[in-house]
Amino acid sequence: MTESGIIRGVFAAALTPMTEDLAPDLTAMISHFGWLLDRGCDGLGLLGTTGEANSFSVHERLAIIDAVGASNLPKDRLMIGTGTCAEPDTLQLTRASLAAGINTVLMLPPFYYKGVTDQGLADSFARIIDQVADDDLRVVLYHFPKMTGVPITPRAIELLLRDHPNAVVGLKDSSGELDNMTSLLKSFPGFGVYAGTERYLLPVLRASGPGCISASANVTSTMAAEVFRAFEESESTADDLQERLTAVRQVFDGLPLLAALKEAMISITGRESWRALRLPLTSLDPAQSKQLRNSLDQAGFNLKAGS
Amino acid sequence: MTESGIIRGVFAAALTPMTEDLAPDLTAMISHFGWLLDRGCDGLGLLGTTGEANSFSVHERLAIIDAVGASNLPKDRLMIGTGTCAEPDTLQLTRASLAAGINTVLMLPPFYYKGVTDQGLADSFARIIDQVADDDLRVVLYHFPKMTGVPITPRAIELLLRDHPNAVVGLKDSSGELDNMTSLLKSFPGFGVYAGTERYLLPVLRASGPGCISASANVTSTMAAEVFRAFEESESTADDLQERLTAVRQVFDGLPLLAALKEAMISITGRESWRALRLPLTSLDPAQSKQLRNSLDQAGFNLKAGS
Repeated sequence: MTESGIIRGVFAAALTPMTEDLAPDLTAMISHFGWLLDRGCDGLGLLGTTGEANSFSVHERLAIIDAVGASNLPKDRLMIGTGTCAEPDTLQLTRASLAAGINTVLMLPPFYYKGVTDQGLADSFARIIDQVADDDLRVVLYHFPKMTGVPITPRAIELLLRDHPNAVVGLKDSSGELDNMTSLLKSFPGFGVYAGTERYLLPVLRASGPGCISASANVTSTMAAEVFRAFEESESTADDLQERLTAVRQVFDGLPLLAALKEAMISITGRESWRALRLPLTSLDPAQSKQLRNSLDQAGFNLKAGS
Repeated sequence: MTESGIIRGVFAAALTPMTEDLAPDLTAMISHFGWLLDRGCDGLGLLGTTGEANSFSVHERLAIIDAVGASNLPKDRLMIGTGTCAEPDTLQLTRASLAAGINTVLMLPPFYYKGVTDQGLADSFARIIDQVADDDLRVVLYHFPKMTGVPITPRAIELLLRDHPNAVVGLKDSSGELDNMTSLLKSFPGFGVYAGTERYLLPVLRASGPGCISASANVTSTMAAEVFRAFEESESTADDLQERLTAVRQVFDGLPLLAALKEAMISITGRESWRALRLPLTSLDPAQSKQLRNSLDQAGFNLKAGS
């Protein structure tokens, strides 16, 4: 962990397993989170886009946070998604995360209204931090403009770092734009900009970023962890390892990502229950399943081995 | 009301007044809703985009629904926004609306995930209708692609009308594209496509649509009601009245709409408390306030008279 409380390395944005009636399967969930850490993840992002957080009610999210809090998972390697459209909900979830011993939250902006001002955006985060009023709180901003339509702008980051330099420690950049990641790292030294995909793990590490938080790391974490280790140990293999990792990541492009990842989990675990997704998301159709399997084969990727 | 339960005419998408600490001001709210009906609105859309619904917790929305249910407002002229990102929340709010005596709900699609399938989109609505299982339920779909990023596609409408012809009665089209409105009205005869702006009130009425549901009708309802009456009575003044109405509506373009409408309410009522907006929205700055007042003057619009 860095001075500011940023954890370095590879984070999986963890999937949430569900029961047949589409409730979060808390037992399978804790087990999946432990498995990801065993597979080489340095940390986990829970209840993010990949975790289908926004498809759960606040009540369901609180139950998930409580279950994680009561588990033996290492709390200092977790961050929990708590950002919603409604300030009271974001506040309640953030407080619950701290109460469960997880001090780092991954916070979406309020994402219903578009075209908001930089000040309004910054104040949305600041009001949560002010109301939580806990020095242990660490906020990683969640920049995912294609999904939210509400980009976290450099000006909003500047306002937040000015007023809340201890609480606001980083950003997950799911824009898919490496230029944005490196530009933010340059503009805000010490601010932890994570790549939102393992495709940019090595470039972001080289630009002094802390690592990546990635959906597909549910499947690729073993390979991604190798890239991180090679970088940390200045091994010459880092570029080759990144190239192979990128090729596997690209398999998931052009497929509905969450459905493809859950489909991959069926292959890895043999558990058909991994297919369950909440609407509006839907499972892969047979042609897509076949495409996924063939493409992973072609990339020479063994799902069970994760490499 | 038409056979299918669609109410014709002018709906204001009602603003939600708030207290100083940004809680919904239930007393001022009921009073505002009554005032809008007195000003010529045929109906009201409550807890929509203009009502800042998604900035409230489910608990707060339930309190608003209960307050409306307990009021003397005519329930058959109201529709309530109940669509959220999470199925359990949408279900709870929809049930509460029916329990409060308001059978028509205006339903956003689950709006976090983008690029969803037509089937997944249709099933999102269908699962709510199936679980509510109340023959009195009337659903108006809420199409607002710029805000949600999740358009209600013709194919999803087709699937819903096939399986739930009694429950799915219409759509609020906030795309701003008149062509989409008239095309849907042509494709689905009897399906009530409301214009999402009073700018297209007359064209949509002429294309056999039921009317409009509009944010700016909080301010312009008197004028919009005149257009509707002129159309209903085949008066030759309808086009001129629409032209004047459109000119006033255009004043709000280029200004943050909700902030501008709340600013206008201050002028109408003299109550400064109308300025309160929940983040991420912010009030007009002084230059914007001045622009609003000057432009309304230039359009010859008297705020207090509403004409």
